[in-house]
Amino acid sequence: MPLVVQKFGGTSVGDAERIRQVADHVARTVRRGNQVVLVVSAMGKETDELLRLADAVARDRHGREMDMLITAGERKAIALVAMALHDQGIEGASFTGSQAGFVTDTNHQNAKILDLRTDRIRAALDAGMVPVVAGAQGVSTANDVTFLGRGGSDTTAVALAYALGADVCELYTDVSGVFSADPRLVPAARKMSTVSFDELLEMTATGCPKPAMRSVEFARSYNVPLHIRSAFTWETGTWVKEEDDTMEQASVIAVTSDTSDGKITVSGLADRPGVAGMLFRRLADDGVNVDMIVQNMSVDGIADISFTVPTEHFELSLRIAREALGEVGARDVSGDAEMAKVSIVGSGMKTDPGVAARMFETLAEAGINIEMISTSPIRTSCIIRREHAETAVTALHAAFGLGG
Amino acid sequence: MPLVVQKFGGTSVGDAERIRQVADHVARTVRRGNQVVLVVSAMGKETDELLRLADAVARDRHGREMDMLITAGERKAIALVAMALHDQGIEGASFTGSQAGFVTDTNHQNAKILDLRTDRIRAALDAGMVPVVAGAQGVSTANDVTFLGRGGSDTTAVALAYALGADVCELYTDVSGVFSADPRLVPAARKMSTVSFDELLEMTATGCPKPAMRSVEFARSYNVPLHIRSAFTWETGTWVKEEDDTMEQASVIAVTSDTSDGKITVSGLADRPGVAGMLFRRLADDGVNVDMIVQNMSVDGIADISFTVPTEHFELSLRIAREALGEVGARDVSGDAEMAKVSIVGSGMKTDPGVAARMFETLAEAGINIEMISTSPIRTSCIIRREHAETAVTALHAAFGLGG
Repeated sequence: MPLVVQKFGGTSVGDAERIRQVADHVARTVRRGNQVVLVVSAMGKETDELLRLADAVARDRHGREMDMLITAGERKAIALVAMALHDQGIEGASFTGSQAGFVTDTNHQNAKILDLRTDRIRAALDAGMVPVVAGAQGVSTANDVTFLGRGGSDTTAVALAYALGADVCELYTDVSGVFSADPRLVPAARKMSTVSFDELLEMTATGCPKPAMRSVEFARSYNVPLHIRSAFTWETGTWVKEEDDTMEQASVIAVTSDTSDGKITVSGLADRPGVAGMLFRRLADDGVNVDMIVQNMSVDGIADISFTVPTEHFELSLRIAREALGEVGARDVSGDAEMAKVSIVGSGMKTDPGVAARMFETLAEAGINIEMISTSPIRTSCIIRREHAETAVTALHAAFGLGG
Repeated sequence: MPLVVQKFGGTSVGDAERIRQVADHVARTVRRGNQVVLVVSAMGKETDELLRLADAVARDRHGREMDMLITAGERKAIALVAMALHDQGIEGASFTGSQAGFVTDTNHQNAKILDLRTDRIRAALDAGMVPVVAGAQGVSTANDVTFLGRGGSDTTAVALAYALGADVCELYTDVSGVFSADPRLVPAARKMSTVSFDELLEMTATGCPKPAMRSVEFARSYNVPLHIRSAFTWETGTWVKEEDDTMEQASVIAVTSDTSDGKITVSGLADRPGVAGMLFRRLADDGVNVDMIVQNMSVDGIADISFTVPTEHFELSLRIAREALGEVGARDVSGDAEMAKVSIVGSGMKTDPGVAARMFETLAEAGINIEMISTSPIRTSCIIRREHAETAVTALHAAFGLGG
């Protein structure tokens, strides 16, 4: 009998009616002759509400206590989903992360899975039950409750699918699959029937919102087939698999954009060893996630370094860069908070050298200035001003013939 | 160093502000040189909200899943209280029922404690921490999450106080102690400085709302001193202890009333063995909680049985009694849904035979008809019509000189 792990996110279990719909969906999957293991996130805005409460009672978010608090949300959801399954005549049984066998390190708020002991889940399956597992949680080696971080439910689902040898891990979302561009920006965007792990990783890293990158990395490492699909239709979504020959035909498969970047340029930098290291160590120590870094050598051993940071870290980063001005022997620091990153993604790009050139030409034809460029074997990204993001995505989507 | 177990109910942790007040209260207790273990209930109306959700997703309340759901409420509360303690510079650490070592039977929704393994709590105390334990929960012998039932947080607190050998178990409520009558009905009602376990049990059983009866029984069995007090003042509340000589002086210490009773009378009953058993077996099978039962032998071996039931069971009980009419060989069934039970309580009553008589006289003088009477060594209860309840309580409170 095929074994399917189905993961439903917060929106899919946002209220009682949605939970009943999920139960109906699962019941149909079971009646079609599948064994099912469910993974469920906290209901809708529950996690945000818990964070609001935490901030109202204390100035600091204490790691161990935050994990105890946040994981309460998934517990509610799994119990309610299991009850709704019973109401459909399906023997659902809820399991916390700990009960499901997720053993993690003690890194609260962002714990890593160390071991997964599936005895209880297997026993439940053998007894004809549908286990309903709380997403994104586990028990630490110190016997404390741990939270795997936001998006951790995807990781829970993929890890279970791997450990149980499931045929597929279905990630149910509020979109019906992975698209060649954000359908809200590009009406002609096409839903892909398949995408490779590497391509999806690049897309996730450059603005495609789902699923959580860490879960895709996990799925790639252990070769767990993913199926990203809508929670509220039965249409086939997008399969995520190892690359195969078919995929190599296509060059560019998607255009993504991320409009939460700010750019900072440190100019007139003495080009001596350790200078860049000094700057980025300071940023890292203050928790800034630096994304793209570009260094241009100018004449006389003087360099300019530009880097991008998330908008919420922009002001902090600008201040750090200015404070470091003397120490790193630079002349000037400038910044622009209103940047966007547009990317084209596709594993076929590796063997198609004309792709990057076509991207730059397309943006130039649209009158859009490129401020920074970075590339990987299967992605090319350009930093542009934010007001041009939508135009850029539309133009690139058309230029690479991605429409349906 | 004295060890104090402090239990805070749902109202005391109803919102962020209240949680901060609880943390402040605990911090002061610690700074006065006490070791403290906290027990916390779910926030305010949280449990009601979870029940509403359960009823919205399924027709049945599945026991195992209900326990998973309900216990999420206490987890939120303990995490938030622990965070608020950290904010006060106190090292709080939350513990679920399972983590605190509460091992229960598998009777979901109303589990009984089988064992209490306090290793983790002791270790936390030894490390100078304030353990914050989730009330009313444990882990069953089948490794499932269990709920001790409503009011179970009091039981958690008393059990911990016993197992840890605490000097006192403080039950914080929204009233400032145990009163000689409900202060809302009798403005002259006096807060008692001490009350015996037996007296408090009788009071709880006859309408005094707090604490949960089961926890008082537990405290009596293991002689755990209780202190019932207000969460929001520092005034001394009411101590609950074994009877001592001082207590024997007083005859009646309190008047209680319970206005949720209905009375049913089955008359013309053949007085042969097994008839009453047949009737009450049927009621028990349908989950009716029968409270008081009075049987009067009339002439020619024909008896009348009257009994009281909670208002919400009244219609069901009346129907069951009518259906059983032929089988039990009775003539008639009548009922009155609008009854109240007024009781006088006091361990001194045992040696003061005039007390019951004075109660009946007082009610007669107030023009109130007594429909049923039941007594215990330290309580006399009268069933009267509900509209007379307030008058009766006021008259009895004055007649026994209970005013401050």
